[in-house]
Amino acid sequence: MPTGRLEAFSDGVIAILITIMVLELHLPDGTTWHALGHQLPVLLAYALSFVYLGIYWNNHHHMLSVVHRVSGAALWANLHLLFWLSLVPFSTAWMSENRFPPTPTAVYGIVLLCAAIAFYILQTMLVRTEGASSVLRTAIGSDVKGKISPLLYCLGIGLSFVARWLAVAAYVGVALMWLVPDRRMERHVSTAHAKSRD
Amino acid sequence: MPTGRLEAFSDGVIAILITIMVLELHLPDGTTWHALGHQLPVLLAYALSFVYLGIYWNNHHHMLSVVHRVSGAALWANLHLLFWLSLVPFSTAWMSENRFPPTPTAVYGIVLLCAAIAFYILQTMLVRTEGASSVLRTAIGSDVKGKISPLLYCLGIGLSFVARWLAVAAYVGVALMWLVPDRRMERHVSTAHAKSRD
Amino acid sequence: MPTGRLEAFSDGVIAILITIMVLELHLPDGTTWHALGHQLPVLLAYALSFVYLGIYWNNHHHMLSVVHRVSGAALWANLHLLFWLSLVPFSTAWMSENRFPPTPTAVYGIVLLCAAIAFYILQTMLVRTEGASSVLRTAIGSDVKGKISPLLYCLGIGLSFVARWLAVAAYVGVALMWLVPDRRMERHVSTAHAKSRD
Amino acid sequence: MPTGRLEAFSDGVIAILITIMVLELHLPDGTTWHALGHQLPVLLAYALSFVYLGIYWNNHHHMLSVVHRVSGAALWANLHLLFWLSLVPFSTAWMSENRFPPTPTAVYGIVLLCAAIAFYILQTMLVRTEGASSVLRTAIGSDVKGKISPLLYCLGIGLSFVARWLAVAAYVGVALMWLVPDRRMERHVSTAHAKSRD
Repeated sequence: MPTGRLEAFSDGVIAILITIMVLELHLPDGTTWHALGHQLPVLLAYALSFVYLGIYWNNHHHMLSVVHRVSGAALWANLHLLFWLSLVPFSTAWMSENRFPPTPTAVYGIVLLCAAIAFYILQTMLVRTEGASSVLRTAIGSDVKGKISPLLYCLGIGLSFVARWLAVAAYVGVALMWLVPDRRMERHVSTAHAKSRD
Repeated sequence: MPTGRLEAFSDGVIAILITIMVLELHLPDGTTWHALGHQLPVLLAYALSFVYLGIYWNNHHHMLSVVHRVSGAALWANLHLLFWLSLVPFSTAWMSENRFPPTPTAVYGIVLLCAAIAFYILQTMLVRTEGASSVLRTAIGSDVKGKISPLLYCLGIGLSFVARWLAVAAYVGVALMWLVPDRRMERHVSTAHAKSRD
Repeated sequence: MPTGRLEAFSDGVIAILITIMVLELHLPDGTTWHALGHQLPVLLAYALSFVYLGIYWNNHHHMLSVVHRVSGAALWANLHLLFWLSLVPFSTAWMSENRFPPTPTAVYGIVLLCAAIAFYILQTMLVRTEGASSVLRTAIGSDVKGKISPLLYCLGIGLSFVARWLAVAAYVGVALMWLVPDRRMERHVSTAHAKSRD
Repeated sequence: MPTGRLEAFSDGVIAILITIMVLELHLPDGTTWHALGHQLPVLLAYALSFVYLGIYWNNHHHMLSVVHRVSGAALWANLHLLFWLSLVPFSTAWMSENRFPPTPTAVYGIVLLCAAIAFYILQTMLVRTEGASSVLRTAIGSDVKGKISPLLYCLGIGLSFVARWLAVAAYVGVALMWLVPDRRMERHVSTAHAKSRD
């Protein structure tokens, strides 16, 4: 099955998720800078989740760009990923409106962890269909970032109950680590394309 | 008329429905595991409806992939299907926030039943345009699942007033039955494609 | 300029409008049939607006399918149409939640009237670009429905202050009149395509 | 990397932003013209933001139509633009529901200013990839509007604390200035296309 409609649907869902989070932003009580400042933690949590969803869109985009066809099982693996991403607005609001208490901060990390696992499952299924010598397999490489991220999420979940700002720092750290994720895949894709022309 | 824009519009609507349900999720009262646990029935109902909308997207996607053109009547049959799907978030919220009382649980089943009938009408219209010897007609086959589902929905609607958890079990059962719906159509489509190459 | 991205954007906006109306549906007070019945006017108004947005999507789809390129002015005419359509959820909610009082019922008609005028402006601009002998111009024909609709909206607006249910009947009447709008254009398009093959 | 999916994602996000603003529109208290009139400032602010998002979609559409490929950095520059645009509904609501007090009116201008800067960054990155002799570079020209807008936003931000209606006038002025933005680029694009045919 071709990938077109899968990409269109995923784009739609991620585009909606990344924007409906702004509906969770309550207006400040009052019209002063101070009232806006009081909402600052909520705005920063929104920005963090915006970046996370942007990273997932970006990685999804890169991964699908070297995939030729998807199986029925991959469609469900993709919906499974979208399910966990759809809980990001909920967990962002629960964490930030209560000013980052332990349990909601841990739940935020759990949702990120589940999304990372879902992305890994989807990637594995796509590699199986594409084959071990495919451009996709080569582009993924040793997948260091993909292996470190779950560990950092687990660290963040644990830290939520001890030092919550360190937990948030762990989540921010993973986001920063991923912010330039494409260069690697871009290079491999370009190399692979160049080779296929020889 | 080509199917492109019909698919794009349906993708858009289903993508929005599957994600706006998270806007219905109220934040837990408090920041403890217990408060989150209290919201668990709502979260599970959300997951069930997410799966249902995923199933509809998946089946819609498969059905349209073997359709070559759509009539004006099929456009309206498609909008009719989207109408009933658009009531899924409403009925999910009414059922789950009140912890599955009889009437809302029955209404949830009625909405699912109407969506199933609307899908059947759309399928029938598409088959009429494609012809009795089309890939679509062959792929549908005897449509056992499509015939059992309405009966199970009716069973669930009736059970809502007697034993509501059995009603929910009926709804979950239909979802599980559909979770692997594509293999049949995938196989028929592949076979048909292979035959057309001979 | 090609029409692809204009269609995609319009599809997106109309898909969102048609679905966010369900967010306006408040849950019934209570879990009985009576409580749901109390919400019935709201649900019926939602169904009417769903049909109206479906009609606009349908007509937009048919019109654009015979257009080859769009000017910069047509992009704005399209946004102007989307602006009035975007007020449909607002006016639907104001009218139905207050059980169809005079002013909101008139405002609902005014929004529909403005959308109809905006559609006419867009159509005129597209015809100008396509030319008087284009398929689009032929397909529109004498545009009887397009000329009667504004008159019926005006009638409905006036009746809102006298006999509001007759006003609602006028709005329902226009929707019914448009429900099968495509046959005419479909036929002309087919004829034109057939001619161009000779 | 081809531009297709970037355009689709941006279309999705802007389409959602332009429509979810109507969810911020509270129903008037009462069902009279007076009650609706009381909501007029909110409706006008909504119309202004609708036009702004329309301008961004329009300019984005024109810019991408002459771009052939996007780098990984440009994907992030695009997400950065979408981030600031996503704050438009929030700042519109804060400004208009409080009837245009100084700080929220200034914040509205700051969001517009940041979006303008983000658009400039994206444009610069795309030009770098396309080259100094590209159609894009020629079409942008001296970019007078792009240079005046930030100055007018700064003026508006300053005026918010002195004469807020002049601030709003500045924002309206920028929107009017951009309302016919495409002719220039359209002409250059046409010319460039004509030249490339020689």
